[in-house]
Amino acid sequence: MTATTTTADTEIRAVLAERERAMRARDADALGELFTDDLVSFSLAPPLASEGRDVEALRAWLATFDGPIEFEITEAVIEADGDIAFARSINRLTATPKGSDTPFTLWFRSTLGLRRVDGNWLIAHDHGSTPFYMDPSTGFRAAIDLVP
Amino acid sequence: MTATTTTADTEIRAVLAERERAMRARDADALGELFTDDLVSFSLAPPLASEGRDVEALRAWLATFDGPIEFEITEAVIEADGDIAFARSINRLTATPKGSDTPFTLWFRSTLGLRRVDGNWLIAHDHGSTPFYMDPSTGFRAAIDLVP
Repeated sequence: MTATTTTADTEIRAVLAERERAMRARDADALGELFTDDLVSFSLAPPLASEGRDVEALRAWLATFDGPIEFEITEAVIEADGDIAFARSINRLTATPKGSDTPFTLWFRSTLGLRRVDGNWLIAHDHGSTPFYMDPSTGFRAAIDLVP
Repeated sequence: MTATTTTADTEIRAVLAERERAMRARDADALGELFTDDLVSFSLAPPLASEGRDVEALRAWLATFDGPIEFEITEAVIEADGDIAFARSINRLTATPKGSDTPFTLWFRSTLGLRRVDGNWLIAHDHGSTPFYMDPSTGFRAAIDLVP
């Protein structure tokens, strides 16, 4: 069984709730506060991996959308012991790209590696992805149309 | 700072090495031994998430390849405390689909959530993915051509 304490679970759920809030508020600075300095991200878009938290890149990405951003973290399960935790969830992003009339909705998988630093849980590793269709005839398309 | 002990790091690297060995040996039973009963996988192929370890599905998947399977776990970084850990790496799979003359090589990201059960580190969560190209004109193709 996991040794996750109620306290760690509650504290990490607060991190996830703050991530939802900051995404919806397009608050790149607040998002940056959630990560460690040595963050390693495996993001939805290339490259395979990127190092460091880049608040300006977050700000630029948020600016590619017009109107409201919806961001929801569902089915979160957390396992923690001492100062280390991992959290998995299924996330929903709904937003309208600049220049488009139509919002898209993307459901994707999220796995976080968290580290408690000076009593605060921070995201040290952030892996977001969709699976892809193993079909060469359609060019191995990302499965961006899945719903949980 | 992480509280990862040398012992946990060594033990979890042995889990990764055994995963490499078992994949190369097409040993579905040995792979199954690496996972908890309540494994949740976010796999390269749909669906978004699957629950439970399915050794028969692993065996069937391994049987879709002819000839040798190469599997390499690179750049592994582990953070552990007590009985919980996460591990990230960049993995390489080289294999030849049945009916093809040509092996493919796929580099993908891996994040594992691990739990120590009765003194043994097991994989409780397995997230493998490629990113995808954010380009609607090419159908949001999976980025299966990236190299680290």
